[in-house]
Amino acid sequence: MELRPQPDPCVVVIFGASGDLTSRKLLPALHNLQHDDLISSSTAVVGSARTHYTDDEFRAEMKTAVEEHSRIAPTKTSWDRFSKDLSYVPGDITGNELWPALKEKLEEIDAASGTSGNRVWYLATAPAFFGPIAEQIGKAGLLDTGGWHRLVIEKPFGTDLASARDLNATVSTSFSEDQIFRIDHYLGKETVQNLLVFRFANAIFEPIWNRRYVDHVQITVAEDIGVEDRGAFYEDTGALRDVGQNHLMQLLALIGMEPPVSWDADAIRNEKVQVLKAVRRFAQEDCEHCVVRGQYDGYRDEKGVDPRSSTETFVALNLAIDNWRWAGVPFYVRTGKKLAGKVTEVAIHFQGVPHLLFAKTAVEQLEPNVLMIRVQPNEGISLTFGTKVPGPEVEVTTVNMEFDYESDFGSGTPEAYERLLMDCMNGDATLFTRADEIEEAWGIVDPVLEYWRKGGVPGRYGPDSWGPAAADELMTRDGRGWRAPNLR
Amino acid sequence: MELRPQPDPCVVVIFGASGDLTSRKLLPALHNLQHDDLISSSTAVVGSARTHYTDDEFRAEMKTAVEEHSRIAPTKTSWDRFSKDLSYVPGDITGNELWPALKEKLEEIDAASGTSGNRVWYLATAPAFFGPIAEQIGKAGLLDTGGWHRLVIEKPFGTDLASARDLNATVSTSFSEDQIFRIDHYLGKETVQNLLVFRFANAIFEPIWNRRYVDHVQITVAEDIGVEDRGAFYEDTGALRDVGQNHLMQLLALIGMEPPVSWDADAIRNEKVQVLKAVRRFAQEDCEHCVVRGQYDGYRDEKGVDPRSSTETFVALNLAIDNWRWAGVPFYVRTGKKLAGKVTEVAIHFQGVPHLLFAKTAVEQLEPNVLMIRVQPNEGISLTFGTKVPGPEVEVTTVNMEFDYESDFGSGTPEAYERLLMDCMNGDATLFTRADEIEEAWGIVDPVLEYWRKGGVPGRYGPDSWGPAAADELMTRDGRGWRAPNLR
Repeated sequence: MELRPQPDPCVVVIFGASGDLTSRKLLPALHNLQHDDLISSSTAVVGSARTHYTDDEFRAEMKTAVEEHSRIAPTKTSWDRFSKDLSYVPGDITGNELWPALKEKLEEIDAASGTSGNRVWYLATAPAFFGPIAEQIGKAGLLDTGGWHRLVIEKPFGTDLASARDLNATVSTSFSEDQIFRIDHYLGKETVQNLLVFRFANAIFEPIWNRRYVDHVQITVAEDIGVEDRGAFYEDTGALRDVGQNHLMQLLALIGMEPPVSWDADAIRNEKVQVLKAVRRFAQEDCEHCVVRGQYDGYRDEKGVDPRSSTETFVALNLAIDNWRWAGVPFYVRTGKKLAGKVTEVAIHFQGVPHLLFAKTAVEQLEPNVLMIRVQPNEGISLTFGTKVPGPEVEVTTVNMEFDYESDFGSGTPEAYERLLMDCMNGDATLFTRADEIEEAWGIVDPVLEYWRKGGVPGRYGPDSWGPAAADELMTRDGRGWRAPNLR
Repeated sequence: MELRPQPDPCVVVIFGASGDLTSRKLLPALHNLQHDDLISSSTAVVGSARTHYTDDEFRAEMKTAVEEHSRIAPTKTSWDRFSKDLSYVPGDITGNELWPALKEKLEEIDAASGTSGNRVWYLATAPAFFGPIAEQIGKAGLLDTGGWHRLVIEKPFGTDLASARDLNATVSTSFSEDQIFRIDHYLGKETVQNLLVFRFANAIFEPIWNRRYVDHVQITVAEDIGVEDRGAFYEDTGALRDVGQNHLMQLLALIGMEPPVSWDADAIRNEKVQVLKAVRRFAQEDCEHCVVRGQYDGYRDEKGVDPRSSTETFVALNLAIDNWRWAGVPFYVRTGKKLAGKVTEVAIHFQGVPHLLFAKTAVEQLEPNVLMIRVQPNEGISLTFGTKVPGPEVEVTTVNMEFDYESDFGSGTPEAYERLLMDCMNGDATLFTRADEIEEAWGIVDPVLEYWRKGGVPGRYGPDSWGPAAADELMTRDGRGWRAPNLR
């Protein structure tokens, strides 16, 4: 296989460089990409935030971070090579000093390192600053460099449809759509990318990937931890905005989309938008039956949380997709915190056999086929199927065919952020979310937010559960049940 | 699950009781069925052959055999219980003494053990005696007992279509079709039975089990041993009669058949006959391209073999099935002795994807999906599929999803003969071959035998090969290749 060439040397400018994301994810990812020679050794990184650091202080801080968080331990050589082009420009984005200082620093780097005016602008700040920074980058003339410019925006992208539209509008005053890379780090996960490969590199699944053969789909994104030290942020956000609007909708889009015409950013994103458009918007009266919210016991005691909070830490939705492929096939999706396990799974539940050859007594345990795609942990794919129990009777039971990613490929697969940063430097937007995708996903979520604003409270759930009782009723009402996630 | 009731007590009369099959398979199977309480403790066994044994001599001989060959070691209790109803009647089937002696013995047993005139007549003799014995049983009045009668006939059933028809006609002078149980012990193997369960207990395979999605099917029945001490028998038989006409055709029928209306002997056998009827008969000119015979190096030196023998120890066929499901989908089948491994496998090779999304460079290793059903050893099912290689490139490779029978169900599954004897006592003919099935299978094989009689010699092949070079050409000519059998 031919490897892609290294991306052009560039400067990665990180706003919010004193934050967690920078130390836990971005710096380790940039170090590792250079360590593996996947990016040029001339790639420079400039951190910026209000905190005052000298270049040396910032480097020391980041060295500790990389040592602590990187999957590849830095060696003296790798760290020296990486840190020689690592610097820091402090400042307030609303002030008058930051922007000229930044401009000067970047021009210095271009001159010294041959980064040719190429920039990755990485917004790792609080969401409120995404718009203003993007606007200022343009206004301050930092885009007039003769090189390429790419803007990476972290989630959450807006807090509802209207704010997402506003943000898209603000950002577009400085950047064109093909320069904007909205991150959903789930899309950088190997198994999430593999959803597309699995669907479209295998001829045997596509013929049964539709309403004729699929009974329903379940998508679970479960965390076992609570809000930890993010109480204040979470209190204003909730599970639907934090995970539902992005990760759940992205997984739904990848499972539900039509085959794209090519493996090309816009070809794939066109199809994702199409299936999101086809997701039926909830009328207010549907919300009563198709939406469940929950809150874990003890959430109201968390730091930064209102003692009478009605913020949801769990949400489950029963979504309908109104198109030829999926009409009548419910997609049950759920996400929550402090659940019985940390697991992300997609399960395609197929219909049963149309005609049963075996005596009823022989098939008590015969379940319809389920194709299960585990995104994390234990990335893998398994298929349940009916087989004969050895013995003189014709007794049928359900067993698993298993594929385990790690046992074939080993552990230590690249982090999502490595993949996404490299794609961005290459100008490949396949794994980033386009403006219309973001807006369609908010369009699905908005009626639920509106319904919740009218009142009601989330159902309570205890530790080691999979959410409130109502989440089970969401499925039992349809004669179905949640599949117990695989927690081995 | 409700277990089937024990079959009625009966007498199993074994002709050819001094032979290998009786000591290696039948007596161990009967002992084990009684050991596991699957058949009545009143079940009696009467051996018969020309060799003179007293009852006690026969019991002693059989005790040694069961100790040596049974998967369940006999205990004092189990052997005493089993052997109290084990006896022997010597005699020549063409003479005047055997039949009255047998009649008397059986009536004694009925009186003593309550076997009510129920009989399993088991023909484990040389094939030449099948017809005469069946005829004599009737003529000697042994069927006038008021109980049920079932005749079990070992393979080979005939040596071509004409002789099979003759044998069916002879046997039917004493027995009706529903009393005749033609054994192909392959059908008693768990994994062979599981072919039907797999196909018809899972809704996801049947939609792609046809010419729209299947490129071709491969069936391999390979032995690693030579003819050993069966040279004289084999010299007159050859691979096509020994394995091709029965095991290969049975596997083809189970893979190719339409869904039966029920799990019922005649419903299943009706569909098997239908697909065998649809197998295109070779015109003599087709044989040149669609038939390969081989002979292993050293075969002519085996004891009992003609030094100029042209008997085939290997055969490969390219079969076409002329029906709506399989038109245009070749079934490549092969069997042989002294091959590189002992393995029985069915591989369904699906077509490739209709449209490739990935760059050519990304998919060098992408093979179409293959569903592989291993009958022996390591019974199991696996599915190859394309998946993403972890890393920043979209590289696709082929991996396996695996199900292993033993790791789910443990080892020590019942022997084929246990299952078949019990089914016969229950009057369940599902796993036995009906007269019309036998004749259709011979109808497929006959033109090949005729073609070979016209001349030519088998291609030679060495040890550790998978047959003669021509067997590979049979597939490469079609742009395909044999899948390397899984020998782990």
